[in-house]
Amino acid sequence: MRTRATEMFGIELPIFAFSHCRDVVAAVSRAGGMGVLGALYFTPEELERELTWIDAHTGGRPYGVDVVMPAAYTGADLGAADGDGLRERLAAFIPDGHRHFVDELLARHGVPELTHDDTAHLLLGWTDATARPQVEVALGHPIGLLANALGAPPADVVERAHASGVPVAGIAGSVRHARKQREVGVDVIVAQGTEAGGHTGDVATMVLVPEIADAVAPAPVLAAGGIGRGRQMAAGMALGAEGVWTGSVWLATEEADTPPAALAQILAATSRDTVRSRSMTGKPARMLRNDWTEAWEGEDSPGPLPMPLQFMLIADALRRVGRVGHPTLTPSPVGQIVGGLNRVKPVSQVVYELMAEFGDTLERLNAATADDRTGRQIGESAGESAGRQGAG
Amino acid sequence: MRTRATEMFGIELPIFAFSHCRDVVAAVSRAGGMGVLGALYFTPEELERELTWIDAHTGGRPYGVDVVMPAAYTGADLGAADGDGLRERLAAFIPDGHRHFVDELLARHGVPELTHDDTAHLLLGWTDATARPQVEVALGHPIGLLANALGAPPADVVERAHASGVPVAGIAGSVRHARKQREVGVDVIVAQGTEAGGHTGDVATMVLVPEIADAVAPAPVLAAGGIGRGRQMAAGMALGAEGVWTGSVWLATEEADTPPAALAQILAATSRDTVRSRSMTGKPARMLRNDWTEAWEGEDSPGPLPMPLQFMLIADALRRVGRVGHPTLTPSPVGQIVGGLNRVKPVSQVVYELMAEFGDTLERLNAATADDRTGRQIGESAGESAGRQGAG
Repeated sequence: MRTRATEMFGIELPIFAFSHCRDVVAAVSRAGGMGVLGALYFTPEELERELTWIDAHTGGRPYGVDVVMPAAYTGADLGAADGDGLRERLAAFIPDGHRHFVDELLARHGVPELTHDDTAHLLLGWTDATARPQVEVALGHPIGLLANALGAPPADVVERAHASGVPVAGIAGSVRHARKQREVGVDVIVAQGTEAGGHTGDVATMVLVPEIADAVAPAPVLAAGGIGRGRQMAAGMALGAEGVWTGSVWLATEEADTPPAALAQILAATSRDTVRSRSMTGKPARMLRNDWTEAWEGEDSPGPLPMPLQFMLIADALRRVGRVGHPTLTPSPVGQIVGGLNRVKPVSQVVYELMAEFGDTLERLNAATADDRTGRQIGESAGESAGRQGAG
Repeated sequence: MRTRATEMFGIELPIFAFSHCRDVVAAVSRAGGMGVLGALYFTPEELERELTWIDAHTGGRPYGVDVVMPAAYTGADLGAADGDGLRERLAAFIPDGHRHFVDELLARHGVPELTHDDTAHLLLGWTDATARPQVEVALGHPIGLLANALGAPPADVVERAHASGVPVAGIAGSVRHARKQREVGVDVIVAQGTEAGGHTGDVATMVLVPEIADAVAPAPVLAAGGIGRGRQMAAGMALGAEGVWTGSVWLATEEADTPPAALAQILAATSRDTVRSRSMTGKPARMLRNDWTEAWEGEDSPGPLPMPLQFMLIADALRRVGRVGHPTLTPSPVGQIVGGLNRVKPVSQVVYELMAEFGDTLERLNAATADDRTGRQIGESAGESAGRQGAG
């Protein structure tokens, strides 16, 4: 296939695959798409190790890295680097009542306490200060794309990437966000609809992609949200995108490191079993509806804290729950396509099926219009017909 | 164009247009699509008059009628026909606190009280008992389609329609609802995503259409929700639909009887200005976010009543507000495509633009795959490529 996205990134298929798992990233890039590693959960040292591994397993094919530099978050004005005690200063904003709520929730579900203090990753890459070292690590590798979520990245980060010859993608859930990203030099807009997993807005992909594509033209747009099979890929591109940005579909692949308890929930869920919740990070993110999300919606919930405090608050809880693998007390980000994820497949098969169904879809649309000489003439015929009868 | 939907209904273009306005219905049918009149707000006598007018203005082209026979509503067990005092018996379920809330809300916004008792349409067609006479009126006309919203219609109503040679369409927001409708004999499923205006579920069109199309195959599916332009029509059909079901886009046409105050709000709104609210009918419906919807979300809101009590509760309020044309105190059902409705156009132009952009979209997708001999081969190539490298 050839679109402006395949040409810009030198890839065969306009399929971008977001994953926190290096095996998925490498496998998608090898299959002709572009894997994009989510850096969020890695320290700079860990990220260095993951990217070195990916370099050795993509056969020179392009891959990308995704960081999170929220345009707005609590503590953004503190201006402290990660080493300057930013964690401790932010932690002071977390009310005791919130800590008690989480502790009681886990106790009610019989989740054992931690036996030793183990809070090294408390803040993760949720802030400018913690994400910048990840960007530096990423630009030290032959990456083909730097992506950023949750708002326009700092202009100097975009400049750093461009100076290294790396295009920058920004994920946007509204026209306003897309325009802001273009203003700081972002090259590609990922227009992500509300049906997507993880952080997402409230406008659906069907509506969002055309309006963002028009607003940022001629910049290329990728369609995200609700895309896990070929018909959805064709729909996303019909809406005006030059390619598709996918995520949830890779959670149910053989290469993914999705924890068994989470995978079982994903395979069993229907498209109606997700909810947009602030309970993981403080910003609305789509995830499976379960005991965790319900507890935060309950009457005795103190309500989620703003980013990055909410994730700091729940970091220990996540570690405690993770150790026992409690199936319904873990935030499990996934999009509405979860209803179609019923079987674990190799990454190469997912890519094959995406493209085969895309091809079938295009054949079906062409067959429907085979009697009309060109698509343009369909419209002219309709216009004339309406005009004739309006005048008659 | 030729799809199973155009063949089933004998129409030129697979565009179904829901509207409460007879002029829109007739204009769409004349332009080659199929107008579908929403019967809800009409008494049987009024509906008779509207359909007689449409018969005289479609030049023999097919049109449809849409009724609302909710599968579940308060009072369904009363079993009373409309004339047996059903209204009065239902009205007894409305708490005084709810009436006071509405009265105080209107007073706060300076809306004058009604000067005389004028509650003739209090119940409307929201129940089996009030919708059946509408069905009888509709089947007395040469309609090409009977559509039903809010769940599976009674099986005997489907049989009545079939005996008259009229196919039945059912609007579904989930696979479960679609299957139930097929069980009672519904012929065509309208898979309506959450981005649609009016009553709607929470699954987006991108996800809902393919899963319903697979679940009810070989029954034809129409895509609804988020469809107001040609790219969206192409996307809906790419998802597996045989045509598209549209609604909001016709509100901003010259033929529509949209009240001026409501039209001004629609033309000004962005795609982020809608909300799913129970404040109009008791079931979630997408409408513009305004003083009305915000009041029902507020801390002193008593919460919406179940269908049909909520609409009975607010019927007088709607009439009061309607008389003064209060721009932000009227529930205004519309989908997320409202952001793209910025100018009033003739119906024929909307149809022309839908088809012209559909044609352009198909040309663009074909150009992207021009280097691949057939769509199928794209997939095979990707599969082989992935296979080779997985083995290498």
